[in-house]
Amino acid sequence: MSQTVPHVSGTALEAFITRSFVATGMPRADAHTAAGLITQADLMGQDGHGVFRLPMYINRIRAKGLNVRPRFRRLQNRTATALIDGDNGLGHLVMHHATLLAMEKAEKTGVAWVGARHSNHAGPASLYAMMPLKKDMIGLYIAVGSANHLPPWGGTEMLLSTNPIAVAVPAMNRPPIVLDMATTVAAYGKVKTVAQKGEMMPEGWMIDRNGAPLTDPSRAAEGFLLPIGGPKGYGLSLIFGILAGTLNGAAFGREVVDFNADSTSVTNTGHLILALDIKAFADPDTFRHGIDAVWEQMKSSPLLPGVDEIRLPGERLHRVTGERSANGIPLSAPLRAQLADLAKELEIDPL
Amino acid sequence: MSQTVPHVSGTALEAFITRSFVATGMPRADAHTAAGLITQADLMGQDGHGVFRLPMYINRIRAKGLNVRPRFRRLQNRTATALIDGDNGLGHLVMHHATLLAMEKAEKTGVAWVGARHSNHAGPASLYAMMPLKKDMIGLYIAVGSANHLPPWGGTEMLLSTNPIAVAVPAMNRPPIVLDMATTVAAYGKVKTVAQKGEMMPEGWMIDRNGAPLTDPSRAAEGFLLPIGGPKGYGLSLIFGILAGTLNGAAFGREVVDFNADSTSVTNTGHLILALDIKAFADPDTFRHGIDAVWEQMKSSPLLPGVDEIRLPGERLHRVTGERSANGIPLSAPLRAQLADLAKELEIDPL
Repeated sequence: MSQTVPHVSGTALEAFITRSFVATGMPRADAHTAAGLITQADLMGQDGHGVFRLPMYINRIRAKGLNVRPRFRRLQNRTATALIDGDNGLGHLVMHHATLLAMEKAEKTGVAWVGARHSNHAGPASLYAMMPLKKDMIGLYIAVGSANHLPPWGGTEMLLSTNPIAVAVPAMNRPPIVLDMATTVAAYGKVKTVAQKGEMMPEGWMIDRNGAPLTDPSRAAEGFLLPIGGPKGYGLSLIFGILAGTLNGAAFGREVVDFNADSTSVTNTGHLILALDIKAFADPDTFRHGIDAVWEQMKSSPLLPGVDEIRLPGERLHRVTGERSANGIPLSAPLRAQLADLAKELEIDPL
Repeated sequence: MSQTVPHVSGTALEAFITRSFVATGMPRADAHTAAGLITQADLMGQDGHGVFRLPMYINRIRAKGLNVRPRFRRLQNRTATALIDGDNGLGHLVMHHATLLAMEKAEKTGVAWVGARHSNHAGPASLYAMMPLKKDMIGLYIAVGSANHLPPWGGTEMLLSTNPIAVAVPAMNRPPIVLDMATTVAAYGKVKTVAQKGEMMPEGWMIDRNGAPLTDPSRAAEGFLLPIGGPKGYGLSLIFGILAGTLNGAAFGREVVDFNADSTSVTNTGHLILALDIKAFADPDTFRHGIDAVWEQMKSSPLLPGVDEIRLPGERLHRVTGERSANGIPLSAPLRAQLADLAKELEIDPL
């Protein structure tokens, strides 16, 4: 593990994020919940969606673009569904609330689907897909991305976002399988991370408005992301946007506010969480052993030349979580400088 | 529209498929339901999943590999979920049954998820995703493909299938948006259709066991399909296989029977259908107008050089359904010959 970048413990990071939010007027319990989720994102190695985003969240709060004391309302409620109005609160808090509700409903009905509107950026999709695991449930989360970077297939107007999906499935002795993917070849958060590191992107992540490859992340605003599988990724992004956005009365298409560029407009971000009770289909232990068997099978495949190992979705997440829980989270110098500035602005103890 | 290939009306095709199944001992009502769904696949332009598959289904029935008088059992039942045992019946009948059940449950609960095991190949995914549309519901269907053609990313053992997903969403004045996609760049049905037409595949659909492009569909057995977005498509195929297979106690991984090569082993095919009641989230008319607006937005995007139009998922399906309903379904000469042979074997009136 590289030690060229200073590391910070999850505990220290969580405390820093908590006091940052508290300094903006957020109730301490909410600040603590949000800080726990953001720190979890960093522990999992989702560098583009963790504390890296904190300055943007705080900036939006200070610009009155995000409500630190939201009152969540249940606009619709059925036995196995609900629609939550997030009252322009931090996305982490809205989706934490929505996911707990979905789990509570699924306990009774077998499956539940909870949508949210008037929410905001909520960090990595896997945070919410993984919450139901502890109740022997499978989680599925979909969101409308918080900025449009993808045109419809064949077009040049960025009407779609990276609209991600995450699905988490528990195993017995192996780590859970956690798929967390953008519908684009690269997520925009990854582009931002590469930019901050001063590196270049591989070809295939983005093209410019003439269709030529774009590899300099500092020029990202001049081009757009490419969907996986061409028209298929476009189709997935479109459908996910409809399910998480249009259906919930949340922003989709031209309504999506670029939260990187605009800190004041209400984003009306939409998400959905589905919780599925494994007990409604199988004995949970039998199922978990079955997932272990899936691990063994995939791992046992002969390899293509040049490949050292088959990996399963969530394997890196699990390994990194272990490493960072033990050794701390590496934070780049530019990010540390940003967080130091933030501490000064908020008049709180630095990290 | 090309008239070089003879066309057959949907009515004539449906009657032919019905009498084919009846000749195998299938009850007439079931034969009619199955024939309607198979014909619908051809009307929609899903050439690889319609009557093209009939000889295989009949072959399996005659080899005692498929039960023409299945008794569906509800192995698990919760308010919003169920697990159906298809008793080795035709997949179309199992999933028609499962989808009606999901719609009935979703009417009460807002959302329902019904899984099936001991089923068989059920034709195109969109057939079932589209059934809930008439009740102002969104449909989502996932299946374990009926033959493994995809290794885990980086491997060479074909442990995964094209595991497709379909999602259908109703519009008001525009056609419904219907995404129906394999998690591979090309579905294996498409490879078979290309082979039957004597054409070559484009590069990117398949590679051989050395990783070199494979473009001759007659050599398809020597290689494997490529997933969309590399590891992402592998992850989607894996997760869909777990949700439709492992969770339902259906075949997944090495257990999957290649139904093209083996007509007698029980396939234990798994599928799932989710029905989501739009009324649990929004006024259905408002939502449908919102989907029309999505159509208009996507269509209005400026185009990349060389592109004539933005298309929406389901647009071609809708157009082809209209054309074929009016003008009939084109059937290639080899397929017509196969169906003529089938009629002789079954001692029924030919098409």
